[in-house]
Amino acid sequence: CSYPVWEDFSAKATKLHSQLRTTVLAAVAFLDAFQKVADMATNTRGATRDIGSALTRMCMRHRSIEAKLRQFTNALMESLVTPLQDKIEDWKKTANQLDKDHAKEYKRSRHEIKKKSSDTMKLQKKARKGRGDLQPQLDSAMQDVTDMCLLMEEMEKQAVRRALVEERGRFCTFIGFLQPVVNGEIAMLGEITHLQAIIDDLTVLTTDPHKLPPASEQ
Amino acid sequence: CSYPVWEDFSAKATKLHSQLRTTVLAAVAFLDAFQKVADMATNTRGATRDIGSALTRMCMRHRSIEAKLRQFTNALMESLVTPLQDKIEDWKKTANQLDKDHAKEYKRSRHEIKKKSSDTMKLQKKARKGRGDLQPQLDSAMQDVTDMCLLMEEMEKQAVRRALVEERGRFCTFIGFLQPVVNGEIAMLGEITHLQAIIDDLTVLTTDPHKLPPASEQ
Repeated sequence: CSYPVWEDFSAKATKLHSQLRTTVLAAVAFLDAFQKVADMATNTRGATRDIGSALTRMCMRHRSIEAKLRQFTNALMESLVTPLQDKIEDWKKTANQLDKDHAKEYKRSRHEIKKKSSDTMKLQKKARKGRGDLQPQLDSAMQDVTDMCLLMEEMEKQAVRRALVEERGRFCTFIGFLQPVVNGEIAMLGEITHLQAIIDDLTVLTTDPHKLPPASEQ
Repeated sequence: CSYPVWEDFSAKATKLHSQLRTTVLAAVAFLDAFQKVADMATNTRGATRDIGSALTRMCMRHRSIEAKLRQFTNALMESLVTPLQDKIEDWKKTANQLDKDHAKEYKRSRHEIKKKSSDTMKLQKKARKGRGDLQPQLDSAMQDVTDMCLLMEEMEKQAVRRALVEERGRFCTFIGFLQPVVNGEIAMLGEITHLQAIIDDLTVLTTDPHKLPPASEQ
């Protein structure tokens, strides 16, 4: 049965979501402290104003990353976990109905074939006793049994197909729910690329710690 | 005073680090559950094998992201917080010593200038009373006072410069500690870029949920 797998996934995603939420809060507090370091660099007598401005850019970029992380965290719950939980309930109901319908159809078909077969066998007995020309009637009855068996085989094939489509449909639904979450992750990437330029600037600014910028001693 | 700012930064980074650690654990459990969903798709009667293999790739890529997140989390503590905390102690000691040295130097210089000035005034008094030709001696004494004042001014400038270099050096040290952390973030980016290709594959595979792959019904 597949439900425990889906339910375990939903539980672990919920746990991750709540962890990410507290991480976002810690990130906000961290970035506030980071901005204070940047402000300190900007405000002190001019010798670190250049560094302060690069640190401020670094901090602002991280606030954008934090906003994207927040969106990703929300998408995890709102686009994936909550709709998935609803779907799991639907799936259970649908699968139950499919099973029930199929069992009923199968039982009815088997019953009809059995009945037709026993009718045919009675006809065969009569025919062997040579009463009248029953051959055409017998041929037709045997053809009926064969047709009913082929029909049942086809019905079984259809039932398997329905189950496969239902199963595949579940994964398609799941992937539809997953998409906004992965897109949220990818959106963070766009923010992270800017970090390289800022850290490069900071590296250049701090290559010689003993060299003060020209304006700072005036 | 700058220490509360540095100490607050260090405290908030420590908090963020501990949050990230528990998030990594939640991510590991989430990815295990995700892999079980992928395995389920791979193993069910063939109709979702293609989806299962794409989901497995998605899961593996996220395991790489998780590994990079773990490295970033470690870098936050080992490359930034711990060395910074040690440095804050050093900075306090160095700043104390600089202040003490400067106070001593300043006091001595002021004392010498005061003494020389009062000597010069006595000499001026004597000169006014006209005893002997004291002019050359007086000129030389006044030149000495002027020189000493210029010297003291230069010394003060040097002290300001030393303080500025010390201050700038702190930010340079800080940025050196920050670099491995930001590099860790940028490394996560490299992993995230691969997600786009996988989510695109999944979108194509799931455009028509009612179409079963050719091999699945055999």
